[in-house]
Amino acid sequence: MTSGRGPQVLEIVALSRVFDLPRAFATANTPTVRVIGPDQVTDPAKIEVAISWVPTDDAFAPYPNLRMVSSIAAGVDRILACPSLPDHVVVTRIRDTAQADMMAGFAAWHVVWHHRRMGQYVANQPLRIWDRSFQPPAPGQVRVGILGFGLMGQACARVIGAMGFPVVAARSSASATPVPDGVTVLAGPGSIQAVAERSDILINVLPLTDATRDVLDAALFARMPAGAVLVQIGRGEQMVEADLLAALDSGHLAGASVDVFRSEPPPADHPFWGHPNILVTPHRASDTSRLEILRQIALNYAALVAGQPAPGAVSRTAGY
Amino acid sequence: MTSGRGPQVLEIVALSRVFDLPRAFATANTPTVRVIGPDQVTDPAKIEVAISWVPTDDAFAPYPNLRMVSSIAAGVDRILACPSLPDHVVVTRIRDTAQADMMAGFAAWHVVWHHRRMGQYVANQPLRIWDRSFQPPAPGQVRVGILGFGLMGQACARVIGAMGFPVVAARSSASATPVPDGVTVLAGPGSIQAVAERSDILINVLPLTDATRDVLDAALFARMPAGAVLVQIGRGEQMVEADLLAALDSGHLAGASVDVFRSEPPPADHPFWGHPNILVTPHRASDTSRLEILRQIALNYAALVAGQPAPGAVSRTAGY
Repeated sequence: MTSGRGPQVLEIVALSRVFDLPRAFATANTPTVRVIGPDQVTDPAKIEVAISWVPTDDAFAPYPNLRMVSSIAAGVDRILACPSLPDHVVVTRIRDTAQADMMAGFAAWHVVWHHRRMGQYVANQPLRIWDRSFQPPAPGQVRVGILGFGLMGQACARVIGAMGFPVVAARSSASATPVPDGVTVLAGPGSIQAVAERSDILINVLPLTDATRDVLDAALFARMPAGAVLVQIGRGEQMVEADLLAALDSGHLAGASVDVFRSEPPPADHPFWGHPNILVTPHRASDTSRLEILRQIALNYAALVAGQPAPGAVSRTAGY
Repeated sequence: MTSGRGPQVLEIVALSRVFDLPRAFATANTPTVRVIGPDQVTDPAKIEVAISWVPTDDAFAPYPNLRMVSSIAAGVDRILACPSLPDHVVVTRIRDTAQADMMAGFAAWHVVWHHRRMGQYVANQPLRIWDRSFQPPAPGQVRVGILGFGLMGQACARVIGAMGFPVVAARSSASATPVPDGVTVLAGPGSIQAVAERSDILINVLPLTDATRDVLDAALFARMPAGAVLVQIGRGEQMVEADLLAALDSGHLAGASVDVFRSEPPPADHPFWGHPNILVTPHRASDTSRLEILRQIALNYAALVAGQPAPGAVSRTAGY
């Protein structure tokens, strides 16, 4: 871990089959923290920290002294599912309030896009059409549901509640997290379904776990009110894409925003691209800055070295 | 004012040369409150209440016992400017928190539109382009200015501040209004200019008065930081449209959202329609429900009849 002379350098090996992480982090490296590729590792026994998003099955095998793997974002599902991840390795994720703000702004934007039918105005402008005929309901009449009430869901609830929408959110277990005014939180089994039933606009920001894989399916869409809208900004594997198409094409759902796909980028013949009632965005709901990621990795590693729990550590059991 | 038998009916005469108000309010009339056209008035001496948006110069002359004129919205500028408005008539406006929520959601939507370059994604979808290359700054790095800090400006500040943007707002005079976290308010002369200088995204929700007519002009745009964006959702007469074009075409401003025009609808050859950096919306930032308008008119009138100040009365001197 140390160069032997000069300042101690934390060399973090990038182990992900998607994204060129050493390149992505090149401008964020500092004299004391550096992201390197496996080909730059001179002695695998000296590697204690890895950064990953989607590791290959054997990614972690070459590093006998690995202590910690950090995700580049809030999601850790692909790391936890990796067969070569040793049981004793601490998996950490990034908890970034600036990222939560970005997520909340993005979610709020899609709520307004559907509530106010902003897409019609965008489409009308090149045609020079001034059409004021659509009268939206007051925000107080439009129920917004949020699946997930962690850092992301709480930020979404705070912003969308401040916009005057009644918000109901689902979380997996009860918690003492303060709930903003105008927000109702349902916890435990059945809460996802109960929120869907009460949502004119439903936003998904759940973490991806075994329990949430494929959660956005025909059964859940059928529970949503007729004419409701889905905003899918969680993880692609949480949605059965064919079921969304069917729910839209039957007219039960009125529209959707989809930022994440099971396979990204979606192929050019993916039916969402040309669907009149789906707004596609290229997985841009939120981002963590490279500097912030390295800062949090260094903090988590320092805690481990000091014998403390890493503040960003996830529960292997919960999956987040 | 009364029918002589049966319940008392408040007949409100609609005096506006734009909008067919009796028709617009037809579904909102109740057994006790009714909006009628001048042609439906049997005895002008019995008319005590009018509703208006843009009155003709002589609109108020036929009604010797007029006590109150209500705007259909927050703006009263055209009513106050009407030569036939008697000095003793109380002018009221609508203060509607649901409308403020709508305004705030609309403003927040345009902030995100520019901050995240959402228009690029909307344009890319039909081309099936998955382009994730744009990295927006964190919301904390983008300064949002709000011109006006009444009911509308406060709602905008609350929502946009909750999204993590640092907000600075300008108001005409100091006030004890509570200021949300993350929001700075500047008051008095020069505050509009000072806010413009500190705004990467500048939102206008000022009332239209002699002091704010043409306020969005070349001089103000020149004070804004290079690359800044304007969101014009106030009143059309507040902007010198040619000056916005010049500021965009010189590259000093990066973009604009324009919801209100000096003349509406803007003609088909208006240069904003086809401008690549202007998003045009058809004066849809916010709306008050017809029922709410009639409810507030009835409340204001009841206060006057009881010898109390009407809660929605404007100051003739301030103009709002």
